[in-house]
Amino acid sequence: MPRLSDRICTLNDAGSDGWEVFYRAREMVAAGERVIELTIGEHDIRTDASILEAMHTSAMSGHTGYAMVPGVRDLRKAVAQRVEQRTGVPTKAENVLITPGGQAALFATHMAACQPGDTALYIDPYYATYPGSIRGTSAVPHAIRTRADNAFLPDRTELATAARTTQAKSLLINSPNNPTGTVYPRETLMDIADVCKQEDLWLISDEVYDTQIWEGEHLSPRALPDMAERTMVIGSMSKSHAMTGSRVGWIVAPKEAITRLIDLATATTYGVPGYIQDAALFALNAGPELEAKVAEPFARRRDLVLGILADQNTVTAIPSAGAMYLMLDIRASRLSGRDFAERLLDQHRIAVMPGESFGTSAAGHIRLALTTDDAKLAQAVRELCAFAKDLSQ
Amino acid sequence: MPRLSDRICTLNDAGSDGWEVFYRAREMVAAGERVIELTIGEHDIRTDASILEAMHTSAMSGHTGYAMVPGVRDLRKAVAQRVEQRTGVPTKAENVLITPGGQAALFATHMAACQPGDTALYIDPYYATYPGSIRGTSAVPHAIRTRADNAFLPDRTELATAARTTQAKSLLINSPNNPTGTVYPRETLMDIADVCKQEDLWLISDEVYDTQIWEGEHLSPRALPDMAERTMVIGSMSKSHAMTGSRVGWIVAPKEAITRLIDLATATTYGVPGYIQDAALFALNAGPELEAKVAEPFARRRDLVLGILADQNTVTAIPSAGAMYLMLDIRASRLSGRDFAERLLDQHRIAVMPGESFGTSAAGHIRLALTTDDAKLAQAVRELCAFAKDLSQ
Repeated sequence: MPRLSDRICTLNDAGSDGWEVFYRAREMVAAGERVIELTIGEHDIRTDASILEAMHTSAMSGHTGYAMVPGVRDLRKAVAQRVEQRTGVPTKAENVLITPGGQAALFATHMAACQPGDTALYIDPYYATYPGSIRGTSAVPHAIRTRADNAFLPDRTELATAARTTQAKSLLINSPNNPTGTVYPRETLMDIADVCKQEDLWLISDEVYDTQIWEGEHLSPRALPDMAERTMVIGSMSKSHAMTGSRVGWIVAPKEAITRLIDLATATTYGVPGYIQDAALFALNAGPELEAKVAEPFARRRDLVLGILADQNTVTAIPSAGAMYLMLDIRASRLSGRDFAERLLDQHRIAVMPGESFGTSAAGHIRLALTTDDAKLAQAVRELCAFAKDLSQ
Repeated sequence: MPRLSDRICTLNDAGSDGWEVFYRAREMVAAGERVIELTIGEHDIRTDASILEAMHTSAMSGHTGYAMVPGVRDLRKAVAQRVEQRTGVPTKAENVLITPGGQAALFATHMAACQPGDTALYIDPYYATYPGSIRGTSAVPHAIRTRADNAFLPDRTELATAARTTQAKSLLINSPNNPTGTVYPRETLMDIADVCKQEDLWLISDEVYDTQIWEGEHLSPRALPDMAERTMVIGSMSKSHAMTGSRVGWIVAPKEAITRLIDLATATTYGVPGYIQDAALFALNAGPELEAKVAEPFARRRDLVLGILADQNTVTAIPSAGAMYLMLDIRASRLSGRDFAERLLDQHRIAVMPGESFGTSAAGHIRLALTTDDAKLAQAVRELCAFAKDLSQ
């Protein structure tokens, strides 16, 4: 066999990929064991039947040939209108590229911002694919560490220093945040915007959880002064409409960037199935009720968990306001997040993600995905707290 | 706006992209004019309703969450079995990655074979996205020119010289060929295999037209001695099952390569919709009748065109044996392919692709896509021949 390229052989971090607990839990389930899984960001509902019927109607009426690579015109328009309504920033179809999911958008935006060898900044803790997505573009991922006692928000000075010393070309942020559930407040986003302008960075803003806000409001940094021209926003139907498997998302960016990103889409994916785009258009047009229906269980379960945590003082939650996760500080147990998660799985058949799976900043934490029914979730959290309390004594 | 990366700004060739005639024809149609379009490789039938019903059944039964990134197990197995049956090369699910279409496979295989700056060889004339797909990976595309009087088959000595002088890492071939309709004979493939082994190249074999064979047989170079370990085959449901818009294809390669390509898929696309994979599985299981039904019109139309050409001696066809195209030599008209196509569109409302749109080797030729109903096609070819004859006198 000829050599494989270095780049494709170094996409994953050396060694562990941080998903052992997840895979082990899946194996236990496959072997017939009862495990409460609070691991991944997959809704416990399926895509709404009305959306799937719209898709079928589109396919049966003949939308099965090549779709336009930039996206179906009406969907590009609908995304533009949605973004304009939600943020107040003038947005046209020419500012929108439809992508086969948010992951493809993450990759494409870094391709656009960075040459091979350029540094791309991202915030730790982070969604699992971030460093690999950057490495995939042959850019160099550089993590900005954050601290639990600052709700894992990035510090302006550290950001600016990292940007300057690495001559970074881009900064990737994610608010509402996976894995922490935090929603970046205005002052944090203002700091980020200032650094981006000062250091001439592209801001890549992953906003796929923007319909899952439990307190306050989501602010898109593209709406901050002079930021529309240097921000590429990543959106998706996955989380807002429980369409994770349909792989449909978008990039909103300056028109000149979208023009080039269309060239890249031609070379990398050649568009998104037309009938899926029609389904996405139907779903967006279905209005906020459907989105509220998809988001509501996570709000309810977040309250449920916070209520249980209020009755004890071993495990504390990172202050959060959005997304389908809660990050819990389990340092009182004197275990690492990984050891805690491994033992919780072995002893209580409860699967959570170790904070260490999302970088180094969230060590001593675990992430709960609020994607299991309320009763099981409540039971698991009570057991988890008792388990932590025993360890702490 | 910060700078966009050089790589994303240089994906297209400087200037013309070779598709002016196509776009102009589309504008004329949109303006209400009657144009016979013989331009693109899109079937004049839609995806079979039985396949779309299978997709709907899968979606409604809940296959709407994240699918496994490497592909649904049963589809990987079915592709492996299909390839093994058709080529005799032992092939397992672990040799298969499901991709969102053949284009994504083209990009991914070059990512795997080449580092940024490495040379990737391809054969001229070529499918329009080839050089951009290679540039997208920051590899350097290097075209191997061919000659009409050799049916546009690559010459062994020229291939070996190009591989050696550029220290190329890969060679991309496409048989049955778009745009020429040629099917590489065994001796050509043996030459290619020898060069790949001698120069330690990955062979990237785009075989998306492998069900469209009108004479002789398709030989996959992966079946040649010692080639399975250095060949990555690209397949797709687009052409074989009229599923162009569904964006589902695959890579067949050594297991070690697939393992790394899965890492890349995680970073670039995160898998293919599960219900589309179920539809593809249904279509493959439907057996050769459905494939024959999709391919048959192109065989019939090829005979039709060759019959018309036999009645005159101005326009000649490149000897071809497969795919949904015919490449015609119109040099007797004393026009370039581009001028011929432009004037044919203006004066006769017939749209064909200039040979120059596919590189430099097919100058003085035009490509017909056999994707229009027989009567219109016959009329267009007769007019085209008369037009060429007038010019030649």
